[in-house]
Amino acid sequence: MAETVRFGVSIDSGLLQRFDALIGQKGYDNRSEAIRDLIRNSLVEEQILKDDAEMVGTVSMVYSHHTRELADKLTEHQHSHHEEIISALHVHLDAHHCLEVVVIKGSTGKIRHLADELIGTKGVKHGRLMLTTSGKDV
Amino acid sequence: MAETVRFGVSIDSGLLQRFDALIGQKGYDNRSEAIRDLIRNSLVEEQILKDDAEMVGTVSMVYSHHTRELADKLTEHQHSHHEEIISALHVHLDAHHCLEVVVIKGSTGKIRHLADELIGTKGVKHGRLMLTTSGKDV
Amino acid sequence: MAETVRFGVSIDSGLLQRFDALIGQKGYDNRSEAIRDLIRNSLVEEQILKDDAEMVGTVSMVYSHHTRELADKLTEHQHSHHEEIISALHVHLDAHHCLEVVVIKGSTGKIRHLADELIGTKGVKHGRLMLTTSGKDV
Amino acid sequence: MAETVRFGVSIDSGLLQRFDALIGQKGYDNRSEAIRDLIRNSLVEEQILKDDAEMVGTVSMVYSHHTRELADKLTEHQHSHHEEIISALHVHLDAHHCLEVVVIKGSTGKIRHLADELIGTKGVKHGRLMLTTSGKDV
Repeated sequence: MAETVRFGVSIDSGLLQRFDALIGQKGYDNRSEAIRDLIRNSLVEEQILKDDAEMVGTVSMVYSHHTRELADKLTEHQHSHHEEIISALHVHLDAHHCLEVVVIKGSTGKIRHLADELIGTKGVKHGRLMLTTSGKDV
Repeated sequence: MAETVRFGVSIDSGLLQRFDALIGQKGYDNRSEAIRDLIRNSLVEEQILKDDAEMVGTVSMVYSHHTRELADKLTEHQHSHHEEIISALHVHLDAHHCLEVVVIKGSTGKIRHLADELIGTKGVKHGRLMLTTSGKDV
Repeated sequence: MAETVRFGVSIDSGLLQRFDALIGQKGYDNRSEAIRDLIRNSLVEEQILKDDAEMVGTVSMVYSHHTRELADKLTEHQHSHHEEIISALHVHLDAHHCLEVVVIKGSTGKIRHLADELIGTKGVKHGRLMLTTSGKDV
Repeated sequence: MAETVRFGVSIDSGLLQRFDALIGQKGYDNRSEAIRDLIRNSLVEEQILKDDAEMVGTVSMVYSHHTRELADKLTEHQHSHHEEIISALHVHLDAHHCLEVVVIKGSTGKIRHLADELIGTKGVKHGRLMLTTSGKDV
């Protein structure tokens, strides 16, 4: 584990006040934690741009469970990529709709490709990919 | 169930060729499905801008499982909002890191507020909210 | 003018090293400036979500200058909203294509509406809105 | 110039109604134009992910004109990259603030790099890059 260090930031007092109000509203306990989150976020934003960065993707898809065979197809897709697709969550949104969240681990390029395939499956009403860190480099 | 109708689109042949190549690469079986996805996506994009639209949010958070009490705090957060937070998925990314995906249902304003609270919890390394449809209006 | 204050941030040394590398690559002279940019960016992100925040929008549109009357229509649009549309830049990208950047000042709701109208004008090949601060609250 | 072709889309009537309402609100004259815009947008989204795609970027920056030498530095930056930075627009937002929009042409990688440098210049309060097409491939 790395050691904790400390650095100082000089800032206009009005700007700091507005930032404190924002992070209070967001539920942060202290300013350092909020700044660290901004820093980690900027690192993740940079990683996302690199096609070969090792990352984690969550694909959220909404579909009607009346669409025959869709669930089967999605499951099949996932099994044929079991090395990258590591987990899935299924939620019954209402009498008709389901949400499926699929977690993929791999290079950003590979994750985007698998996400496209999943979202493009006939019957998926809306799908979107969100990339986050695998935890190692932030 | 609504009936299926058909409409025509006039388009430059070169543009259509490039679109066909793109959707082939994304794994679409046919053009209508790809167009419907673009249409649904544009509707969801519009809903996201409205603070009181009824939507579904997935919050993806990465944290070190060595952070004492974080898992407890996240669980507590979730239970105190059990009406909106409907499900959660926990993934062990490696020996040190966990991914937690939390599914929230409610107005976009309420979802954003809960997501901020979850992501702002001390110990969460990176977190991000993705909004999607509840399925009803697309 | 507000006074300059100073606050401390405690952080894992490895995380700080990676941040220093990132901001070096981005051309920042010092860490305080990079942190202030992250802070201001988080404030602007929050403002963008509010429909009545006073902001500035830049709409970038690409179109073929062979499209008859498009330039006229865009100019007309702009003049009929001269109170919000404060400036425009026209760039000749190549023998066929033009880029027009239109600067709009007003509430986020009003800016989005005008941007939709401009981007929806027949002949515009691609258009996108970017919201930024009017400078006052950051 | 390529010829115009026509293709049909089959769609749920309720979904089409909601799309027609949305594009009416956005000011589109007809459905084909709205669909073509969605198609072109999906092509541009794909290009943005490729580091070597030939694109156009607009960087919008807000700064206080009281910041000494900032305008000079920005101008200098721009001249030392005159092959990529093709134009700039300067807007006086109020008594204190300026908006500068810089248009860059080049590979996405090169554009991102120049945008980072411009936005990272001391005194720039907020800056953001928007990538669009150079017009050729859409």
